[in-house]
Amino acid sequence: MVKKRFFKKVIPVAVLSTVLVGSLVSTIANPTVQASETEENNKAEIKNVIFLIGDGMGVSYTSAYRYLKDDLTTPFVEQTAFDKYLVGQQMTYPDDPEQTITDSASAATAMSAGVKTYNAAIAVDKNKSNVKTVLEAAKETGKSTGLVATSEITHATPAAFGAHNESRKNMDAIADDYYNELINGKHKIDVLLGGGKSNFERKDVNLTESFKQDGFSYVTTTDELLKDNNAQILGLFATGGLPKMIDRSEDIPSLEEMTTSAIDRLSKNENGFFLMIEGSQIDWAGHDNDIVGAMSEMEDFEKAFKVAIEFAKKDKHTLVVATADHSTGGLSIGADGNYNWFGDAIKAAKRTPAFMANEITNGADVEKTLKSYIDQDLLPLTEVEIESVRAAGEKASDINNKIKLIFDKRSYTGWTTSGHTGEDVPVYAFGPTKDRFAGLLDNSDHAKIIFEILGTSKK
Amino acid sequence: MVKKRFFKKVIPVAVLSTVLVGSLVSTIANPTVQASETEENNKAEIKNVIFLIGDGMGVSYTSAYRYLKDDLTTPFVEQTAFDKYLVGQQMTYPDDPEQTITDSASAATAMSAGVKTYNAAIAVDKNKSNVKTVLEAAKETGKSTGLVATSEITHATPAAFGAHNESRKNMDAIADDYYNELINGKHKIDVLLGGGKSNFERKDVNLTESFKQDGFSYVTTTDELLKDNNAQILGLFATGGLPKMIDRSEDIPSLEEMTTSAIDRLSKNENGFFLMIEGSQIDWAGHDNDIVGAMSEMEDFEKAFKVAIEFAKKDKHTLVVATADHSTGGLSIGADGNYNWFGDAIKAAKRTPAFMANEITNGADVEKTLKSYIDQDLLPLTEVEIESVRAAGEKASDINNKIKLIFDKRSYTGWTTSGHTGEDVPVYAFGPTKDRFAGLLDNSDHAKIIFEILGTSKK
Repeated sequence: MVKKRFFKKVIPVAVLSTVLVGSLVSTIANPTVQASETEENNKAEIKNVIFLIGDGMGVSYTSAYRYLKDDLTTPFVEQTAFDKYLVGQQMTYPDDPEQTITDSASAATAMSAGVKTYNAAIAVDKNKSNVKTVLEAAKETGKSTGLVATSEITHATPAAFGAHNESRKNMDAIADDYYNELINGKHKIDVLLGGGKSNFERKDVNLTESFKQDGFSYVTTTDELLKDNNAQILGLFATGGLPKMIDRSEDIPSLEEMTTSAIDRLSKNENGFFLMIEGSQIDWAGHDNDIVGAMSEMEDFEKAFKVAIEFAKKDKHTLVVATADHSTGGLSIGADGNYNWFGDAIKAAKRTPAFMANEITNGADVEKTLKSYIDQDLLPLTEVEIESVRAAGEKASDINNKIKLIFDKRSYTGWTTSGHTGEDVPVYAFGPTKDRFAGLLDNSDHAKIIFEILGTSKK
Repeated sequence: MVKKRFFKKVIPVAVLSTVLVGSLVSTIANPTVQASETEENNKAEIKNVIFLIGDGMGVSYTSAYRYLKDDLTTPFVEQTAFDKYLVGQQMTYPDDPEQTITDSASAATAMSAGVKTYNAAIAVDKNKSNVKTVLEAAKETGKSTGLVATSEITHATPAAFGAHNESRKNMDAIADDYYNELINGKHKIDVLLGGGKSNFERKDVNLTESFKQDGFSYVTTTDELLKDNNAQILGLFATGGLPKMIDRSEDIPSLEEMTTSAIDRLSKNENGFFLMIEGSQIDWAGHDNDIVGAMSEMEDFEKAFKVAIEFAKKDKHTLVVATADHSTGGLSIGADGNYNWFGDAIKAAKRTPAFMANEITNGADVEKTLKSYIDQDLLPLTEVEIESVRAAGEKASDINNKIKLIFDKRSYTGWTTSGHTGEDVPVYAFGPTKDRFAGLLDNSDHAKIIFEILGTSKK
């Protein structure tokens, strides 16, 4: 299996130089969106909305990713693709009788439908009544619609845009909704790309056949995706969630490729489109306290964001919003009293710790495995570190924990929880009406603003 | 000693209701600064600049403080005084040969002088050459100037606005700078309010006498401060840093009182003023992993911020910027897999854990002390918790750690480090040119923009 290299490109982005040349005034860069981008477009009519969610992508993740991408030969830290589009932050709390920190379902329902609800709710309110989503509103106005994710496409975040259920756990029922729920007699989602074959190809029914019968293409590999140009498509590239980008084989598309493919199809509709794209596994890596996986998924998501921005820049009638639903893991840049965070220790990884642990559990030699998947120039392993993995025994989860610990200790990465955390998350926006997303938003504001933009009422 | 009550007022602030009434459009609140505030003032001439720094006040702190203040009888979370003024975030990294996470001195130098430098630098660049600060530039143009802090007034953050030294450790030399460095033959700082008597009243010199001889008032209690109305004043209210707000007696002023007192004096100058206000000990509580102290200091800082905003609203020619220099402690809202953060457990505290520990070390009974300083309705202590403190022995630091652990466990608060962390921090702004601070800034941008506003070049 040919593997893709992690972090293969350094992204050169102009950034504030700390070297002062000439008068101060002339060296003041304005890192917000440039005037030409703002003024020209901000009043243009919006045809398309691309809404990107980095699941779990709190401020520690966006900042850590910038640290990671830093070119150490320059005196400043290079900006990420997100940075120049920062417009503010949003509050993420749910309206749940038991919990004050949100899950992904509740947060996604707030962002998709403008309604705060209980944790686990998929586009239903606190009374478990269905609430209309911005994707559904877009379809009602004749736009095309799409959902793209690296989790199961029936997972909480995409589900809250395209289905309705009292619980995120009911992923088969959510797949049923994707097929059964029609708007004006038509399937409400035109492009579905992600993981989760097992929720479509089931004992009781094979929804992939049903979709095909109704004119959808059904693809399961990168090649099939890229060769197909049908406006309606179901693409399922794994039984469950996709492997993390750093572990992914070329027959499984990147989030960038899925995003490009979705936009290509959806943008054929003269009435425009609504597209939700999720970097699903930033959160999963956060739950696992896996800094290598988290940064891998940040890169996957950043590339998809760039595709959306490039399209919007050309199109001039596209609003792009990117945000997170919450943060995960209590990730900190710096730990145990150290005033450093070493990206090189993370860049050394060629696979996730979980991938390496799996190989070891399957019989591979510990030292060989570690040294072949961890760049020994960037992170030369000590005998003590190798021994700590050997001593972990044979269980993949134990081995995984020991390998993660090496990356945490060497990079000075901290974690406090296997769950979510409640701090505000960043909001990025580009295109017409981007200013509406500036300042401090509530997560439910996103849907409210988008409903307004679409000219649709909620009931 | 009469003690002040912690969190004595609930601040009612209008916030986005999640209850949808009537059409959606009409319920969309715009949480950014209201148009009347923005449009009228944004082009007005700026006479005064009030720059507030919440030391260590990362996004986890501002968000935790909102959670803490939440009125649990309403379906939404009430906003803090900061929230409606959020305009973006800033990057905090230093330009240090050894460290990639900033200290307060380097960050304050970036914000005061527009120059990235090494950790510990007090308004000197990487070559240890002095760099001009915005306070100095303001004084050059005939404005009055002030520094207010709850740490020693010679501590890193205020020092980087009013002194120059190769190391933050040299607090005596920094006090000397405050007295000796003149601009156009005059003392460069008119109002100095904070802690740190020991750096002024020394064996080699008593700088408080020198200041008095030059016409400054010298005060050491709240009463003296409030009764005095001299335009120039040195107020030192503790040997070192002030006690935390929650532990403070009434003879020591709050940051709010010091801020009001500073603005009253400085605003008499027709040419305007520059004032830096630091909530110094949010960071100290963060270093100590003390959530009670951190929230106490957030409240102290929030009240000072409100004073600044109220003045600016009336004045219409005042720019207010509030931000942090970095975050501290790896604080997380939620820990150990729990999806809750219980503010009540923190509101229960009537003193910091360090205060209680000190009383116990001095012979006070463990159970009595804990039960008298921890509201037993909000946080009923278990026998196991009380015993854990008893078992800590007699050392105040050990007892302190055990008491802090009770608050952490009961509130689900997480920490990863005794040091700083590298994530971006929030930026709040109000008044003319507030838009210049929007989006993602570098910490050095603050000084660059303020120099420009003051019409002063840096050299």
